[in-house]
Amino acid sequence: MKKRSLHPGTWLFPLPVALVSCGNMNTYNIITISWTGTICSDPPMCYISVRPERYSHQLLMDNPEFVINLANAPLTFASDWCGVKSGRDVNKFKDLKLTPMKAETLNCPIILESPINIECKITEVKKLGSHDMFIAKVTNVQVSDNLFADGAVVPNLKNAELISYLKTVYLSQGEQLGRSGFSIKK
Amino acid sequence: MKKRSLHPGTWLFPLPVALVSCGNMNTYNIITISWTGTICSDPPMCYISVRPERYSHQLLMDNPEFVINLANAPLTFASDWCGVKSGRDVNKFKDLKLTPMKAETLNCPIILESPINIECKITEVKKLGSHDMFIAKVTNVQVSDNLFADGAVVPNLKNAELISYLKTVYLSQGEQLGRSGFSIKK
Repeated sequence: MKKRSLHPGTWLFPLPVALVSCGNMNTYNIITISWTGTICSDPPMCYISVRPERYSHQLLMDNPEFVINLANAPLTFASDWCGVKSGRDVNKFKDLKLTPMKAETLNCPIILESPINIECKITEVKKLGSHDMFIAKVTNVQVSDNLFADGAVVPNLKNAELISYLKTVYLSQGEQLGRSGFSIKK
Repeated sequence: MKKRSLHPGTWLFPLPVALVSCGNMNTYNIITISWTGTICSDPPMCYISVRPERYSHQLLMDNPEFVINLANAPLTFASDWCGVKSGRDVNKFKDLKLTPMKAETLNCPIILESPINIECKITEVKKLGSHDMFIAKVTNVQVSDNLFADGAVVPNLKNAELISYLKTVYLSQGEQLGRSGFSIKK
């Protein structure tokens, strides 16, 4: 098994596709983020890393809140477009016909069309280099009603058909290979 | 489009499946990690979040280095098993017949069988609650030779058949929906 070494770089994939909404209910934007993840289970905490020159960076500094709206297949075009266009030039919600609905715990919109909306309050901004990391607590999670089976109180994430990002390409949801814990099931 | 609110929780998926190797070349372990991500492009930086009670936590404190070994489909069983078993009780490399090869820039093993090995040096440990976040710089990346097309100097990640994790299930690589930037291509 031969290996080659690459220059140090960003090779941790596949990643969720996060349409991050930020700002307030008057001035808001969407920015597609790859550098995001969960950093703690209890309390539930997430981060997003954003370049200081991005339009959304100032919105995040002005109102320290954001929503991670996960992208499903129908949001693939929006995900790509919100990653290359700037909120300085376009109104992304309007141009993409997406619905800004006030988050339950924030003064900032969720994207109604996204199946999962993770509402976050920023607790710290960490300067790292090209990116600033916004560390946040999860304050609420909204989930589309159609992810719940009849009578279920926990949504089935597979119904969301979430997409992922593999450095240069967007991928659909793959096939199930096993359930968590299958390796020790009798 | 009706929504339901859930208790604040960890709903950011799908995620890469990271078999993290740590320790030194005498005492080492593998721990499967979901809470991982890239936090900065330049310099390239990653994190992993680990519960203090985990065996690997002490190894990370003793030698502040680790390797993120990405899991492909043949490593699905190992990924699950290394997430539920403790290195206090078993020798994971030996029991799974995985090969610990010294990292190029660390005194810690990579998992040779993983297609992508991201070598990291820890720069900071941040206590958050249930998890400590280990913030790190990427010092080298090793990639299996078979990911490179003839004459290519950049690997094609799609050839790695990386798996992902969706809260309770492991998923195979999905189908390509579009290339980065497709929304503004003429």
